[in-house]
Amino acid sequence: MSEGGACVTADVMAYADTHGIDSHGVLMLGLYDELRRDGKLNLSAEPKLIRDRGATCLWDGSGGLGHHPSRLAMEMAINKAKAFGIGMASVRGSHHYGAAGAYAMQAAEQGLLGMSTSAVYRPGIVPTGGLIPMLGTNPIAFAAPGGTQPPFCLDMATSTVAVGKLKLAKLHGHRLQSGWSIDREGRPITDPERALEIRHLTPLGALPELSSHKGYGLATMVEILSTVTSGACFAPLHGTMRPGQAKSDVGHFFMAIDPTFLREEGSFESDFDAMASALRQTPAIDATTPVQVAGDPERIQAARRKKEGIPLPLDVASMIEELCQTAGCLFQLKDTL
Amino acid sequence: MSEGGACVTADVMAYADTHGIDSHGVLMLGLYDELRRDGKLNLSAEPKLIRDRGATCLWDGSGGLGHHPSRLAMEMAINKAKAFGIGMASVRGSHHYGAAGAYAMQAAEQGLLGMSTSAVYRPGIVPTGGLIPMLGTNPIAFAAPGGTQPPFCLDMATSTVAVGKLKLAKLHGHRLQSGWSIDREGRPITDPERALEIRHLTPLGALPELSSHKGYGLATMVEILSTVTSGACFAPLHGTMRPGQAKSDVGHFFMAIDPTFLREEGSFESDFDAMASALRQTPAIDATTPVQVAGDPERIQAARRKKEGIPLPLDVASMIEELCQTAGCLFQLKDTL
Repeated sequence: MSEGGACVTADVMAYADTHGIDSHGVLMLGLYDELRRDGKLNLSAEPKLIRDRGATCLWDGSGGLGHHPSRLAMEMAINKAKAFGIGMASVRGSHHYGAAGAYAMQAAEQGLLGMSTSAVYRPGIVPTGGLIPMLGTNPIAFAAPGGTQPPFCLDMATSTVAVGKLKLAKLHGHRLQSGWSIDREGRPITDPERALEIRHLTPLGALPELSSHKGYGLATMVEILSTVTSGACFAPLHGTMRPGQAKSDVGHFFMAIDPTFLREEGSFESDFDAMASALRQTPAIDATTPVQVAGDPERIQAARRKKEGIPLPLDVASMIEELCQTAGCLFQLKDTL
Repeated sequence: MSEGGACVTADVMAYADTHGIDSHGVLMLGLYDELRRDGKLNLSAEPKLIRDRGATCLWDGSGGLGHHPSRLAMEMAINKAKAFGIGMASVRGSHHYGAAGAYAMQAAEQGLLGMSTSAVYRPGIVPTGGLIPMLGTNPIAFAAPGGTQPPFCLDMATSTVAVGKLKLAKLHGHRLQSGWSIDREGRPITDPERALEIRHLTPLGALPELSSHKGYGLATMVEILSTVTSGACFAPLHGTMRPGQAKSDVGHFFMAIDPTFLREEGSFESDFDAMASALRQTPAIDATTPVQVAGDPERIQAARRKKEGIPLPLDVASMIEELCQTAGCLFQLKDTL
């Protein structure tokens, strides 16, 4: 990778590991390298700006990883929002972009509302009533700046749970919650090993009687914003849509809103603070577990990890060590427990 | 109401009844009249444009119903999108605006992507881990135009189910699904009568172990976009935030995107068609119940109702008849079953 691209990618991956989103940080290096060796990921690709019109722009990831084009695209959406009040950026020809929240927070750090969605190269969510996965775990991230209160940051897959939760259950020898995953006949399964082998995730809502059609609808909305708007490829149709299509052609969506276009400077932040405080003060079922606001768990985790370091499971550390040896890089852990 | 305002309001209410969204159509007339008589709704209010800057604008509903300012705001967001590629409109000082999907479809009918969210004057959703409702059933609507395929239209409350589902269960003497509603100690309840009395709805996801924090996060995102961005009032803090505040001060959010800013004319629609067709062709659990795409059930309902008429339960018909008598209007049903 170019040095600039590598720095940005490392920065977004470190955001994930720092904030406890372990599934989207250095853990991904193994998969990225596998995709690279299989010729499905061109790490030397440089993002290209394809269109720049009004309050919108379109980038092409050129078949590389998503982090670099996404940072550039969100920065441009932010600048558009500062000029027009709202701005958007689309990315096509991209791949995995890490934790969606990193891009939404990019806007919030500059006093703007930020939103990002992404498609995923591999379908995981089974549409309500269906038997095979058609949509990725298609994340939605949304962030907003606070005044005295910390920012809001929602970062969620539109599946009931992400694949990482199945892996954790397997690791700890737990059964899955009924509704997380289904078998090839569409019935809920609770064996994590079988669930990981089949990888049929339910949309948020889990079961039809708990409104899983809403999660399916949200996952489709994300696909429209990320894939159809940018001209990327809908994963189940890869290879059938356009001749000469890039090996990886994942799409992302970025949007930023400057609240000072509609309200006096500082009003958004003070009203946000009042709302967030009220939510945190909601009488709680368990007085020792206060109600949180989206972004709280990750921020608490980040504060701890910035002080104590980021714990790495031994198998992840070994995987990275191996990658480093192959690449001729220095591998050094701070401490080993 | 002014004749213009009444026409727009009737049009949006008829959209709900035609599309089978019975909870948001003429059924609401009773509540609207009650709010009017209580001085909480000023039906003669006229929407005012407060700010018009770049690709954004802000409207004030002046304490009236939401339908009229919302149609005007979405129209302006659409025009902004045609000029800048993306446009947004905020509304404050408003009230119930009917079916959110009507505004998203306003954009799709003009070949644009449309999104709308709204806060609700009365909290219904209990935050994950909390004991009292803090957020409305805060809907999200998103629509996109098709080419040969019908448009996409997601229109969903961010609660697991809307209050209407509890009413239906009570009407038919059914128990509720566990996870729809909770009691004052935060435990799931299945008695529809008690659930309607308490009105503590769960966020989409239903239970913490099925990721209800995601639905809670989405409901909060809607509150930020609708309430905080426009300067409307967060319902639990009504009366404490600003002196001289309107009796009704609900906020809405509208956004439109013109896909031709990023892609050749017609490309969005043809890629959308391919995606929607693939989703509908997903192998189904039950071959007689094909997988649908958001908007399909409402469109099927609308086709039937346009032919056969809109069935009105007798008590709703009587309520409207009474309102008409009080108002000195003619009341006439086409047929009585």
